[in-house]
Amino acid sequence: MKAPALITLLTDFGLIDPYVGILKGVILAINPRARVVDICHHVKPGSITQGSLLLQEAYPFFPEGTVHVAVVDPGVGSGRRPIAVEARGRLFVGPDNGIFWPIIAGQKNSRVIHLIKPEYFLPEVSATFHGRDIFAPVAGHLSKGVDPLEMGILINDPVQLRQRMPVRKGGILSGHVVRVDHFGNLITNIHRKRLEQFLDNAQPVIRVQDSTIHGIRETYREAAAGEILALIGSSDHLEVAVNLGRACDYLRLDPEGVEGIAVEVSKLRY
Amino acid sequence: MKAPALITLLTDFGLIDPYVGILKGVILAINPRARVVDICHHVKPGSITQGSLLLQEAYPFFPEGTVHVAVVDPGVGSGRRPIAVEARGRLFVGPDNGIFWPIIAGQKNSRVIHLIKPEYFLPEVSATFHGRDIFAPVAGHLSKGVDPLEMGILINDPVQLRQRMPVRKGGILSGHVVRVDHFGNLITNIHRKRLEQFLDNAQPVIRVQDSTIHGIRETYREAAAGEILALIGSSDHLEVAVNLGRACDYLRLDPEGVEGIAVEVSKLRY
Amino acid sequence: MKAPALITLLTDFGLIDPYVGILKGVILAINPRARVVDICHHVKPGSITQGSLLLQEAYPFFPEGTVHVAVVDPGVGSGRRPIAVEARGRLFVGPDNGIFWPIIAGQKNSRVIHLIKPEYFLPEVSATFHGRDIFAPVAGHLSKGVDPLEMGILINDPVQLRQRMPVRKGGILSGHVVRVDHFGNLITNIHRKRLEQFLDNAQPVIRVQDSTIHGIRETYREAAAGEILALIGSSDHLEVAVNLGRACDYLRLDPEGVEGIAVEVSKLRY
Repeated sequence: MKAPALITLLTDFGLIDPYVGILKGVILAINPRARVVDICHHVKPGSITQGSLLLQEAYPFFPEGTVHVAVVDPGVGSGRRPIAVEARGRLFVGPDNGIFWPIIAGQKNSRVIHLIKPEYFLPEVSATFHGRDIFAPVAGHLSKGVDPLEMGILINDPVQLRQRMPVRKGGILSGHVVRVDHFGNLITNIHRKRLEQFLDNAQPVIRVQDSTIHGIRETYREAAAGEILALIGSSDHLEVAVNLGRACDYLRLDPEGVEGIAVEVSKLRY
Repeated sequence: MKAPALITLLTDFGLIDPYVGILKGVILAINPRARVVDICHHVKPGSITQGSLLLQEAYPFFPEGTVHVAVVDPGVGSGRRPIAVEARGRLFVGPDNGIFWPIIAGQKNSRVIHLIKPEYFLPEVSATFHGRDIFAPVAGHLSKGVDPLEMGILINDPVQLRQRMPVRKGGILSGHVVRVDHFGNLITNIHRKRLEQFLDNAQPVIRVQDSTIHGIRETYREAAAGEILALIGSSDHLEVAVNLGRACDYLRLDPEGVEGIAVEVSKLRY
Repeated sequence: MKAPALITLLTDFGLIDPYVGILKGVILAINPRARVVDICHHVKPGSITQGSLLLQEAYPFFPEGTVHVAVVDPGVGSGRRPIAVEARGRLFVGPDNGIFWPIIAGQKNSRVIHLIKPEYFLPEVSATFHGRDIFAPVAGHLSKGVDPLEMGILINDPVQLRQRMPVRKGGILSGHVVRVDHFGNLITNIHRKRLEQFLDNAQPVIRVQDSTIHGIRETYREAAAGEILALIGSSDHLEVAVNLGRACDYLRLDPEGVEGIAVEVSKLRY
C-alpha cells in the first residue's frame, strides 16, 4: 500500500485566524487521504527572505515526494505569478517572488511551472487570498499525482532572491542576525562552512552589539548560567545564545527588531 | 476505500495548555482513523459571536460529511444543553449557546439534537471541561457513523444568536469591526452584497476613527506603502487595511479592544 | 486493518520556529503511516517540572500503545542520557532528566531503556537538537513496532524528579501555583484527594496573595461576574479563577512570574 501523500504548509498567516485551517479544508476536500503538516506559520509578515530561510531549514527532513506549500505573499493580487517547482525530489507551490530561489538555483534538473489552469484552482479566485484559492488546491491535486506540467507552462525566469551574504573585509567576517528563535537565540547568516574557511583553525572572537564572545562552544551548557556564548546551531549557522537565558534579553534587543543586527567575527591574535 | 472521517476543532482554548491535544486524544481513542484538523483556537475567550463568525468563514471549505466541533463555552457546567446539529450536509457539535445559530437559521432540513446519552460521553463528566468529556467523544462517535438521534432527542428551540447587523441611517451605512486579524486588518460586519446594495454603483467614502478612505480597492498593493485602504476581504466582508502595514497600528488601536469600533460608509457626492 | 500508530509531541519549542514541523518530518520519513498529534509546545522553556505535569495531565486521554515524545531538554549535549520508557501501556521517549519520573515511579512493570544504538538516530547527531536527531527518529521506529530493548540497554536508575508537594503546617495546607492557563486560571499543586483528606468535610478558606476565598464552587458560573473563586479544575487540582475574567489579572500577577506563588487552605471555624 502506498504511503499517504504528504503536504507541508509554511506561511506568515499566524494562528489567530482560521486561514491555516481553511487551507487544510481546501486540500482535504480535493485529496481526503493527504497528510497535511505545519512547518511554521509565524514567518515575519511579508518577509520572503525569512520564509525562504525557514523552508530551506525544514524541507530536507521531509521524505522525497513531499509537496511543500509556502505562502509569504505580499504581492498577492498584483501581477506576480503563481508557480510550482520540481526540484530536489520534491514539489514546491507558492508565489513567484523569490521564496523558492535558493531551492531552484544551480539545480539543472529543476522545473518551474507558471500555474495558469483555473481548473486546478477553486472556482472563484479572490484578489487577496491565493493561498486558499490557488496554492492549496494545486497542492491537493499535485498530491494526487497530477503532473505539474498539466497545470501550466514551463518558465525559465523565476524571480531571484537577493540575499545578503556574510562579507570579509580586512580581518573581519561580517554577517548579521536573520532571526531570533523561541529561546531568544540569535541565528545569523554565517554558515559553519563559511566560518571554518575564514578561521582556518584560528580561534574566533565574535562581536555583537556591545558584547565580545571568545570561542565557539559545542553546547549551551559549556557556558556558565546566564553567560553569553556562540555556537553552531541546529541549522548549521553561527548562533549567539545565553545558557539558561535569552540572548535577545541579555543584549536588550526587541525580538521584533533584531533582524539585520551585525555580527562580526575576527581571529584571536596571540 | 472510504475517505477517512474528518473532524475539525474550533475553540477559545489557545495553545499554551494541553487542552486541544487532550481533545484529540479523546477523539482518536474512540476513532483511531479519524482525521482531526484545527480551524482555530484563538477565538476571544468566551466570545460566542466571534466563534460563530469564524466557524461560518471556515466550514464551507471542508468537504460535506465533516464533523465540526466548536467549543466556546462560557456557560459550561450551568444548565446550557450540549447539542449536535445536522445541517448543510455537515455535523456540528458544541454547546447550545447560539454559536451554531447562523448555520441552523432558515435551514428547513436541519436537525438539532440535545445530547443526553452518557454512553457517548467520557465515563466521568467534569463540571468545567465538556469539550473533553462530552463534545470530543460525541464527535468521535459521530465520525464512526453513529446517528446523532441515537445520542439524544430532537429539539426545536436552539438558542438564537443576536448579531448586530449593519444599519442604514439617512445616507450612511453603519457597521462595526468584528475582529482584527494577524496582519492587523480590521474585518467588519458589512458583507459585500449589503455594501453593493447600499452603494448602487456610487463610489463609497469610508470613515473609521479619524480616518477617511475613498473607494474600494481590489488588492492591498493598489494603495501606496503605508497607506490606509478599504477592500472586500477573503471572507467577503468590508475590511480596512494598510498596504505593507497594520491598520490597527495605523489607527492606534489596541487589537484587544477593537471589536465594535464603528465603520461608516457613505456615497461620494459630486 | 490495524489502527495507525499514534505519536504525541510535548515540547518547550514554541511555534514561531520550524522545530516542531521538523520533528514531524523526521518521524514521517521513518514511518509515513504514523499519526502525529501535538499535546503542547508551550512548556515554560527548560521547565522539566511543568513539562512533566502537562504530560501527566494529557497522556491518559490517549489510547494505550501511543508513543509519547517529551522534549524539555535544558541539558541537551551534556552527559544526560536519552531514554525510552515502557510504562502504563504506553511508550515515552525523551531525555533522562526526571520528566518521566512521575510516570515511572511505583510502576513495577515499567522498563527504562538508555538509547545507545545510533542506527535508530539520524545519521548525524548535533549537540543541540536531540529532539530532531534522536527522539523523533526513535519514536518513528518505535511506532513501527521496534522493541525498545533493541535500541539500548535497560537501566534502573532513571533521574528522579523532585516535586514540591503541598505541606500541612498546623491548621494550614500550603501549596503553590504551578501554572497559569490561557484563561488566566491559576492551577495549583493541591490535588482534589489531598484537599478532601485535609478538609475532612469542613468548609475551606483559601488565601492567595491578598485575596481570601470561601468555599469550593462546582463551576465558574456560580460566582458573580468578575468575582474570584476556587474550584477543582479539569486536571483534578485546586484552581483559582475569576468568573468571566482572568484570575492572574485580578490578582495583578504577571503570567510569567506566577509559578510558585503560595496558596493556603484552612478550615472555616464556626
